[in-house]
Amino acid sequence: MTTTLPKPTGQMPDTAIYERRESVVRSYARSMPRQFNKAENIWMRDNQGGRYLDFLSGCSTLNYGHNHPVLKQALLDYIAADGIAHGLDLHTDAKADFLDALESVILKPRGLDYRAMFTGPTGTNAVEAAIKLARKVTGREMVIAFTNGFHGMTLGALACTGNAAKRGGAGVPLSHVAHEPYDGYHGPEVDTAELLERRLSDPSSGLDAPAAILVETVQGEGGLNAASPEWLRRIAAIARRHSALMIVDDIQAGCGRTGSFFSFEGMGFTPDIVTMAKSLSGMGLPFALTLFRPELDQWEPGEHNGTFRGNNHAFVTAAAALRHFWSDGRFQQDIARRGAMIERRLEAMAAEHGLTTRGRGMMRGIDVGSGEVAATVTAACFDRGLIIETSGAHDEIVKVLAPLIIDDAHLSAGLDIMETCIREALAVPYGVAAE
Amino acid sequence: MTTTLPKPTGQMPDTAIYERRESVVRSYARSMPRQFNKAENIWMRDNQGGRYLDFLSGCSTLNYGHNHPVLKQALLDYIAADGIAHGLDLHTDAKADFLDALESVILKPRGLDYRAMFTGPTGTNAVEAAIKLARKVTGREMVIAFTNGFHGMTLGALACTGNAAKRGGAGVPLSHVAHEPYDGYHGPEVDTAELLERRLSDPSSGLDAPAAILVETVQGEGGLNAASPEWLRRIAAIARRHSALMIVDDIQAGCGRTGSFFSFEGMGFTPDIVTMAKSLSGMGLPFALTLFRPELDQWEPGEHNGTFRGNNHAFVTAAAALRHFWSDGRFQQDIARRGAMIERRLEAMAAEHGLTTRGRGMMRGIDVGSGEVAATVTAACFDRGLIIETSGAHDEIVKVLAPLIIDDAHLSAGLDIMETCIREALAVPYGVAAE
Amino acid sequence: MTTTLPKPTGQMPDTAIYERRESVVRSYARSMPRQFNKAENIWMRDNQGGRYLDFLSGCSTLNYGHNHPVLKQALLDYIAADGIAHGLDLHTDAKADFLDALESVILKPRGLDYRAMFTGPTGTNAVEAAIKLARKVTGREMVIAFTNGFHGMTLGALACTGNAAKRGGAGVPLSHVAHEPYDGYHGPEVDTAELLERRLSDPSSGLDAPAAILVETVQGEGGLNAASPEWLRRIAAIARRHSALMIVDDIQAGCGRTGSFFSFEGMGFTPDIVTMAKSLSGMGLPFALTLFRPELDQWEPGEHNGTFRGNNHAFVTAAAALRHFWSDGRFQQDIARRGAMIERRLEAMAAEHGLTTRGRGMMRGIDVGSGEVAATVTAACFDRGLIIETSGAHDEIVKVLAPLIIDDAHLSAGLDIMETCIREALAVPYGVAAE
Amino acid sequence: MTTTLPKPTGQMPDTAIYERRESVVRSYARSMPRQFNKAENIWMRDNQGGRYLDFLSGCSTLNYGHNHPVLKQALLDYIAADGIAHGLDLHTDAKADFLDALESVILKPRGLDYRAMFTGPTGTNAVEAAIKLARKVTGREMVIAFTNGFHGMTLGALACTGNAAKRGGAGVPLSHVAHEPYDGYHGPEVDTAELLERRLSDPSSGLDAPAAILVETVQGEGGLNAASPEWLRRIAAIARRHSALMIVDDIQAGCGRTGSFFSFEGMGFTPDIVTMAKSLSGMGLPFALTLFRPELDQWEPGEHNGTFRGNNHAFVTAAAALRHFWSDGRFQQDIARRGAMIERRLEAMAAEHGLTTRGRGMMRGIDVGSGEVAATVTAACFDRGLIIETSGAHDEIVKVLAPLIIDDAHLSAGLDIMETCIREALAVPYGVAAE
Repeated sequence: MTTTLPKPTGQMPDTAIYERRESVVRSYARSMPRQFNKAENIWMRDNQGGRYLDFLSGCSTLNYGHNHPVLKQALLDYIAADGIAHGLDLHTDAKADFLDALESVILKPRGLDYRAMFTGPTGTNAVEAAIKLARKVTGREMVIAFTNGFHGMTLGALACTGNAAKRGGAGVPLSHVAHEPYDGYHGPEVDTAELLERRLSDPSSGLDAPAAILVETVQGEGGLNAASPEWLRRIAAIARRHSALMIVDDIQAGCGRTGSFFSFEGMGFTPDIVTMAKSLSGMGLPFALTLFRPELDQWEPGEHNGTFRGNNHAFVTAAAALRHFWSDGRFQQDIARRGAMIERRLEAMAAEHGLTTRGRGMMRGIDVGSGEVAATVTAACFDRGLIIETSGAHDEIVKVLAPLIIDDAHLSAGLDIMETCIREALAVPYGVAAE
Repeated sequence: MTTTLPKPTGQMPDTAIYERRESVVRSYARSMPRQFNKAENIWMRDNQGGRYLDFLSGCSTLNYGHNHPVLKQALLDYIAADGIAHGLDLHTDAKADFLDALESVILKPRGLDYRAMFTGPTGTNAVEAAIKLARKVTGREMVIAFTNGFHGMTLGALACTGNAAKRGGAGVPLSHVAHEPYDGYHGPEVDTAELLERRLSDPSSGLDAPAAILVETVQGEGGLNAASPEWLRRIAAIARRHSALMIVDDIQAGCGRTGSFFSFEGMGFTPDIVTMAKSLSGMGLPFALTLFRPELDQWEPGEHNGTFRGNNHAFVTAAAALRHFWSDGRFQQDIARRGAMIERRLEAMAAEHGLTTRGRGMMRGIDVGSGEVAATVTAACFDRGLIIETSGAHDEIVKVLAPLIIDDAHLSAGLDIMETCIREALAVPYGVAAE
Repeated sequence: MTTTLPKPTGQMPDTAIYERRESVVRSYARSMPRQFNKAENIWMRDNQGGRYLDFLSGCSTLNYGHNHPVLKQALLDYIAADGIAHGLDLHTDAKADFLDALESVILKPRGLDYRAMFTGPTGTNAVEAAIKLARKVTGREMVIAFTNGFHGMTLGALACTGNAAKRGGAGVPLSHVAHEPYDGYHGPEVDTAELLERRLSDPSSGLDAPAAILVETVQGEGGLNAASPEWLRRIAAIARRHSALMIVDDIQAGCGRTGSFFSFEGMGFTPDIVTMAKSLSGMGLPFALTLFRPELDQWEPGEHNGTFRGNNHAFVTAAAALRHFWSDGRFQQDIARRGAMIERRLEAMAAEHGLTTRGRGMMRGIDVGSGEVAATVTAACFDRGLIIETSGAHDEIVKVLAPLIIDDAHLSAGLDIMETCIREALAVPYGVAAE
Repeated sequence: MTTTLPKPTGQMPDTAIYERRESVVRSYARSMPRQFNKAENIWMRDNQGGRYLDFLSGCSTLNYGHNHPVLKQALLDYIAADGIAHGLDLHTDAKADFLDALESVILKPRGLDYRAMFTGPTGTNAVEAAIKLARKVTGREMVIAFTNGFHGMTLGALACTGNAAKRGGAGVPLSHVAHEPYDGYHGPEVDTAELLERRLSDPSSGLDAPAAILVETVQGEGGLNAASPEWLRRIAAIARRHSALMIVDDIQAGCGRTGSFFSFEGMGFTPDIVTMAKSLSGMGLPFALTLFRPELDQWEPGEHNGTFRGNNHAFVTAAAALRHFWSDGRFQQDIARRGAMIERRLEAMAAEHGLTTRGRGMMRGIDVGSGEVAATVTAACFDRGLIIETSGAHDEIVKVLAPLIIDDAHLSAGLDIMETCIREALAVPYGVAAE
């Protein structure tokens, strides 16, 4: 290992203002007790001089790293020139330019014909719009989502989310959604697509005809479970056969995270609706998008709206990101190489300890057996200057969401830290180590 | 009238890219068929040289005008210095500074003790968090909202919204919310607070015990109906008596729009929960906040979350806006003077045509009798360079949401245009004019 | 008073078997701690020789008294001849005969054209069928019910019921129903039909377009509130105007209780759907019926069914009852005379104590001010051999539901007891009397 | 075969009165176009002299045949002596006697300690009470039911029912229930109890913690699927492990139909709640019962009620039935012998045609491959004097629900007819035969 990480200073900030004025609902600040102030590329910095390698990337929101110079300059120029910041859903140069980039850089080369709906700039809002549209177009109410799926926290999207603690926060029963087992959920012996087909084909199964089947190709929050292309193709076929729409929630897995711009590319099916957010703006600005086949564009004007649906700053950075990273195949080749490196390294760690890995592309993790062990690992990583987090039903997966633009040396250095911390955490049985 | 507005060029933009790629759900772009590119202060500009006086202010999102130089410079400096753009809910300098401004400039001087929860940066998300919290804290499921209320478009907030067309978009029945008549809804003879009290006190009324009463002090989308302080005090008392939480949705009416920072100031009651968004960031950046009494802060970490809940750019501009505009009473005095001018002018227009006015502060409108007339008025205003929109169940209210920072001369000029256009629209009976 | 009631023996039965084996959900057995065994005409008898005048009539299920000889003989003959007891929904002689009686004795003379749907033999099932049909025919989901309405205990009907304690038993939120204020609910000054019309005509009221308006003409459980014919006509007109179906729940008020066979006769409107149960079988046998206009008969075969929907014993007694009591106008005249006597007597009691009366026909009561007083009154009545119960949101109404066939002397005797017991209960302030 | 059935006269009744006055929702009358009038033992008679062997038994409501002399005489005596017919939930001799019979004849010998709740006299009402109680006791809202389950038609029970056509009749979405695969639903390879356990143990499966698991041991309407004792034991264990209540809906399978009084006897588990109806009264009178462990008896008085919850005629016949049939083991032995005969004969028919059989005890059927074939078979049987019906998601099962008291000769004769009709129906390919 030639690249070493600087030791962060490791000092707790003065948290009095948070204690007094910020809700206890905050979560990441608990496991990363620093006050950050600056960030660039793969690094985050705290206000006492500490520097951290970011293997979290804002939960896949910062695929291009922090404050990427191209995006940053585009935004600075735009603001300096009094570009429109907030424009409701009015036509603006920035929106037109984004739509042009989406069309020319993303849709056309992939042979995709989608219309873009700018929703309120949160992923959950893009999901709400998607299921509203599916219900409207089909005249049906039920949506099929999957075990361990995560789709957001507003009531419509939360009903599609599997996590019991999040669901419990609703305070009302969550209705009109059925959760079916995801690919591999019941082990390799049970074909869960077949289970679903069986129930949908049976007029006495109690499963109402669905408006949509909502699926992540890799479950970001639910444990980095990656569905096989074959299974996804079958889900797409099941949706079509039962006149339901297939919605791919590509909020976390999209924008290159799994290797291609959309996570479902090259799999032999085309979703009816796709939701995007997180890394779409490229620079971490709030932005969300629901894409759908033109025939489905049956909205009344303003039927779904939102004050911030036209975040023009995000149009600017998003268009710049699409053009900079996706105009040719080089970025995708880089992701492939780095993803392979991550896979190789994680497999080695897994083999060493008898563990298993999960995921696809640069969206991968390792199941360390329990949330306690995983928390030990991530805390130890943080102490060594690596920001990394967990995933899964029991937070038992240590997940690597490094910026896609990371250089190989730092990727390797980060993985080294992770390897060391896993080794230490598993050196003694957890119960003993805890004493 | 000494101030005249320049004639906008009035050319339709090339809309092919929108036709091809943007969903038909867009709405404002239909009545304002231009492509805008720049904006500063009270002006929006289209890309063909047209300039428009903005009496819409992003639906009250741009209370301080477009690209206010203080906010703009703060943001430029922050970005240039690689300030963190996206930080999940990590502690950051920008967040700490915003919390400090909120505490010292807003809360303390008003004797308010609230905690801030940063939700996904949309108003609807702030409302979803508010009603989740109310349901969690009270263990009840039902929320009381009001006729003509507007609270957002995700399923939880949409259930609280009165508008039938928006509700219909849900595609599923909207549950767990009862809509009760707002102040004055049944005319001056019927005391709607008394109606509500009667039903809540009656164990056989069919109205389940509520978790919360959710109210706007002025109904922004619902027709600029302004509740009286007396009525709001009684609603607060009813909520307390029935162990429900009172939530003031201050998303549109807050941030000075009605004359004070919070729309309920000086009314003799303190809401348990307040939702804020729109003008909170000051520059139109997506930002939302749910404030509540510290005793209610019973969230589990991450029980409600969202990728963009820490929009650090918005922290920067919001803190700058609070300090610049609210550190002393001058801005509030300006709003009072301008609000009085708007009131005087609208009353005169109303008197001329036998119409009625609505609203409070700088959140006012005039009921021109029908959506058709109102559309005629706003279209004619637009032709003369004034951006203005409608509100109300039938879009029958022409609403004045001028930037709060507008100078008196341009405010007067805009009102002149409005006066002229109303006079023309009402000159001939609508049915005849249409021929 | 010339008719005196025999003193009941007043001995508690051995309740060990109930304590061991019957659920504590039982209620009437608590206030009438006897074990009954026989009953005829207006009398119930306990197994220790006590005899009780029945002013409860099985909550209006025994309008023709207990074991009326005509009905009893018809049933004995039928059973003795091996008449079919249970026939699902097969054609049977008994069903044909009942339909013939319904048509010739009830419908034709009243100019009504209804089809009969035999539902599971409970009132709640008839209501469930009615609202299912309304939802199916209109394609809408929301039903409007009224404050203090009572419609049953299964989830669909319970959602229409106003009583909070009953609703709480659901264990899930009750949805798809809005409760609006009944006639007079907000006092004589507030026109509740106007309130409803206002909200239904307003596309922004939050009240979704209803499938049906479900109403009792007199609220049996909700306090014997009697709607005025004018109000009911307006509700019928409102339903028609908004393309909703008007359902009259005549389960308690029908079968002569208010003076005519249907409680809405002669009021100038015809409900789209009518639900019946309670006294329909005439002898207390389980039986329920949903009547509707032929155009509404859009059911698929078996779309709503139930094992006991063809209770042939009840067909027999019901047909006998219709023919015996309703073939001419004499019975109706008797009810009118007795109803007037009850009204006169209750008004006198009310005047004596400054109380108010409620109801219509032989469905009347007196508001004694509190559930405690009412319970004192009914307990004292029971001690004197009079079975009588309470109604209302607070059980504050002492209600007279004497058998419709009661002779004037015993009716008078029962009212005498009631008068005495009210006088005693109100003689000393309640708090003092309780010591 | 020495017993032959008389040829029924086969004449259509005059159906004008039904056309005019009965809803088209009727179903059985369509496939059995006769007007019946009398019935005794295993026979039904039409009003034109036709006689039919009853292999439907009111869908298992007439397990002891029609008008059984012991029950009939008990009822005649009771009515003749002016026994109370309708008593709300008052203590009556008849109720006490029924409770005594239930305790001494059924519960004690089986070592069961249940309390009885008399619900409205329909099966659906017993189910509504059961799930209400489970929700109340556990404080949870979700109920797990199974594919192909049938539990009733009121909204709460209908939500638990699997059949899409029945569900569609609701007109509103059916909520708070998840349908899981029944034993064998996904073929012999897939262990559906394991699937359920997996999802309930996973905090991220999207399946909320259930109040109850509601199961039929044999699915009467859903295709006579019989769960294995092992599977049911595991479901019971799963319910216990997850603090949910296990409810056995024994409405169709109970009262001896599967061989023992309760269908779950001898299986090594005790349900928390049991629902009963259908054959409980013994003579086809409406009667329903919810049994539960005494610790669960947490109802408030009257929290679930219903006008006809004390059907005293049914108490009389039910007590007589329990004492007559269940005081010793002889009846059970008869059922075992007859059930074995049915099994043997159905297996032979299945073997002849390459079909499969279903069911247990005297609740058995044969899958003839399609609803069309099954309808051909039952119609042919009816022409030969045998009343028999279908079951299953596609009505593809011809089901034998002969009275439990049938003598062996007539049982054999009925099965002969069935055998012949199946043979004929399958002799030529269906499409050809139809020409």
